[in-house]
Amino acid sequence: MLGAVVPPPPHTSGPTPPRGGGGGQCSSCPLIGGDGLRSWWRMALGCCLCRAGKAALRRWRPSGASRAGTWAPPASSQRGLGGAAPPGVTQIPPTFGFLFDIDGVLVRGRYVIPAAQEAFRKLVDSNGQLRVPVVFVTNAGNCFRQAKAQELSDALGLEVSPEQVILSHSPLRLFRQFHEKCMLVCGQGPVEENARNVGFQNVVTIQDVRKAFPLLDMVDQSRRPKELPPPTTDFPTIEGVILFGEPVRWETNLQLIIDVLLSNGNPGAELADVPYPHIPVLACNMDLLWMAEAKMPRFGHGTFLVCLENIYKKVTGRELKYEALIGKPSIVTYQYAEYLIKQQVERQGWPSPICRLYAVGDNPMSDIYGANLYNRYLQAACQAHAKAEVKGSVVTTNPQSEDRSELRKDWNVSLESCKSILVCTGVYNHHGDVPTDPHESVLETVFHGHRDFCFDPGLVEASYMVQDVNEAVELVFEKENWIQE
Amino acid sequence: MLGAVVPPPPHTSGPTPPRGGGGGQCSSCPLIGGDGLRSWWRMALGCCLCRAGKAALRRWRPSGASRAGTWAPPASSQRGLGGAAPPGVTQIPPTFGFLFDIDGVLVRGRYVIPAAQEAFRKLVDSNGQLRVPVVFVTNAGNCFRQAKAQELSDALGLEVSPEQVILSHSPLRLFRQFHEKCMLVCGQGPVEENARNVGFQNVVTIQDVRKAFPLLDMVDQSRRPKELPPPTTDFPTIEGVILFGEPVRWETNLQLIIDVLLSNGNPGAELADVPYPHIPVLACNMDLLWMAEAKMPRFGHGTFLVCLENIYKKVTGRELKYEALIGKPSIVTYQYAEYLIKQQVERQGWPSPICRLYAVGDNPMSDIYGANLYNRYLQAACQAHAKAEVKGSVVTTNPQSEDRSELRKDWNVSLESCKSILVCTGVYNHHGDVPTDPHESVLETVFHGHRDFCFDPGLVEASYMVQDVNEAVELVFEKENWIQE
Repeated sequence: MLGAVVPPPPHTSGPTPPRGGGGGQCSSCPLIGGDGLRSWWRMALGCCLCRAGKAALRRWRPSGASRAGTWAPPASSQRGLGGAAPPGVTQIPPTFGFLFDIDGVLVRGRYVIPAAQEAFRKLVDSNGQLRVPVVFVTNAGNCFRQAKAQELSDALGLEVSPEQVILSHSPLRLFRQFHEKCMLVCGQGPVEENARNVGFQNVVTIQDVRKAFPLLDMVDQSRRPKELPPPTTDFPTIEGVILFGEPVRWETNLQLIIDVLLSNGNPGAELADVPYPHIPVLACNMDLLWMAEAKMPRFGHGTFLVCLENIYKKVTGRELKYEALIGKPSIVTYQYAEYLIKQQVERQGWPSPICRLYAVGDNPMSDIYGANLYNRYLQAACQAHAKAEVKGSVVTTNPQSEDRSELRKDWNVSLESCKSILVCTGVYNHHGDVPTDPHESVLETVFHGHRDFCFDPGLVEASYMVQDVNEAVELVFEKENWIQE
Repeated sequence: MLGAVVPPPPHTSGPTPPRGGGGGQCSSCPLIGGDGLRSWWRMALGCCLCRAGKAALRRWRPSGASRAGTWAPPASSQRGLGGAAPPGVTQIPPTFGFLFDIDGVLVRGRYVIPAAQEAFRKLVDSNGQLRVPVVFVTNAGNCFRQAKAQELSDALGLEVSPEQVILSHSPLRLFRQFHEKCMLVCGQGPVEENARNVGFQNVVTIQDVRKAFPLLDMVDQSRRPKELPPPTTDFPTIEGVILFGEPVRWETNLQLIIDVLLSNGNPGAELADVPYPHIPVLACNMDLLWMAEAKMPRFGHGTFLVCLENIYKKVTGRELKYEALIGKPSIVTYQYAEYLIKQQVERQGWPSPICRLYAVGDNPMSDIYGANLYNRYLQAACQAHAKAEVKGSVVTTNPQSEDRSELRKDWNVSLESCKSILVCTGVYNHHGDVPTDPHESVLETVFHGHRDFCFDPGLVEASYMVQDVNEAVELVFEKENWIQE
């Protein structure tokens, strides 16, 4: 979910409002409109209204305290002694870590959700150091990691390093096989610089193509060339396309990308046959819609991809293929998060491997689907690994999405699970009408996930559902028998 | 097909080049690239490469002369005595008329195709007056009829009146039920004025909506509002949408149109359920692609419609519905052409009704498909009319497209047929490789027609196929036993 520049909503600018709320409205989501996120959008965005009924049944509450009171560790907790442990007690190193979505979980636009500040007070020790590994995972991409880390530092009152931030395009750093190729980049903001920052050394922009081939961009009549330009002969052959995020002037971007794909990277040329498979396309951030200040969701990069895919299909009769889809809910994003978690553990000198990740998010289709998909991947990888040990075969790939299991070969595989925790301070609002017949609701549900991520009810159902990120941290501490400061 | 501003291609700036040409190249189509329109584009644009083989078998040649020589009327011709007939011979009034496509038939961009000037010398009498009714039918729409009539007058050397020109949106004049409603118009150029010119009295533009609801257009980060604007309360409820042609900044237009459809015409509001059917949408010009100076075709308005249809489907799970699709190959465009032909006949005082139309075009999917579809409609209408006379029932509707048969009730139905004539001076190039197995080719063919116009091989097969518009006129004169000047 992308960030928005908004005025402070009531629930983020002052004290935490009373939780819950009656009727059909979620008091935590005033930005989404007077009646909260209305039913059809809620269904469409999350594809999981029918699951809310089930999820609510096991909605977690702190076990050791009333909701309004302070929380104390469960009496049975003997194991978790993280942070500044009582004198004489050795702190046990963490064996779990957190992946936090940003928008809708920690902030809403420019404003901090108070529960986030509360949560992070629990996560740091008396020196302000994190007691467990934490990575921030956002599908935003029109900015720099450094800037996002600084924003988070200011918002949460602790020092967040760029190495803890995953933007939608950050995992591109892993795609080394393309780093020396000539790549066309599409998006707005610092796309060219972002591409170079994640390792691409040979980048051309949509504007470069437009300038070199002025006869291609013809939709805007006022920008058509007045005279026939000389043919361009020295433009490099484009070897791949990276879609960073939604661009400006979609007609220009769509036309030039289609030209590049149909010409095998030489948009001034014409080929007798459609080159297929076309040159590789890597796309970051699949979010179809996102919530800003308007009452209805706004177009995200996923909407641009819908246009590109369908134009390509209409023109060629064939499917646009992605070399990789990056950003939540893609597996590679979670692989990269695991990689960063491991780096943190090594930097901190924590001796124990991380066995469990908890992914906290507000978007069932992005955060929850992604975490659950990665959890399935981990289970499959463990089983395959066990089989391989017996038979000497290689690790099998995941059937649902792209597999980059070779990335995990570089480090000792310790991660066993990735649990999803849904919060209600963003896109998802659980106070809507739960249908009496879940089956009927499933039929009516609109799937807002990407074309290549099939709808699977099991993947949009969160492992846990809580009110906000503070409750999420409390939940995990209880599950892990982890002591609070 | 839309017009392009291009320098004079060899075949339009000088004497008519030799016809035919060897190998895989059509000498009449130098703008399409050195090798003519390559096979996959040719197949995709026209969906009729497999038909070319069949059409070529009955490719028409003037019967009374060699191809390079002058043509003389057939010896048997006694009936046709149009124009300035020989002294003592009474001119028989015309019983047929012409529909001419413009781009690719009469002109290429700013340059006249010489065969067009030759053809029109045959069509006028010694006073420069047309001897048969003629209407010019183009899918262009970002201009005024007056301007297009003036361009044609200059190009063809005769006075063309605006009443002889049908732009893609011209038939909107017939949609009187919307003329007093508040309509959102989308396109570039003089869309607002064009809407008013065809009868709409209450028009708002995309820019009006954007200005009134600044929180809606959020894709371009540089254009987002810096401060939260006050809510707009006095904007009229939009009652319908007219898509005139491809706009500029597709992301803005797509977002606002979707907002209008999902809010029942009140884009600042939010509804609990998707209003369906949505408010009426009328779309002009369905052309997916068109040929300009670039070697590969460029996006037309049909590509914008592909985006709109697929975003609507992805977001709501439902199909975008069109109240009307206007412009070739839509039936209503041919109904309007018939209406204008009848007006010409009345103005000229020709006593005979027009029984046969000949539609000359270069685009199988637009000109040929449309003429054939209208021909089917006429046949069905004639049969239904005959049945109705017996049974007293109403005329049945056409199953393939929208039916506005009530339009034809206003005038005496005399038209019996609409024959299609394909020329090779534009999109279509018949000198490509004809597949040895037509069935195989059909399977490989990509359908570039609009979603709501199903592919039907019979509809893209021209009644006749000739080299250029001059041959088309000679063919019709021969068929009609019409004497030349």
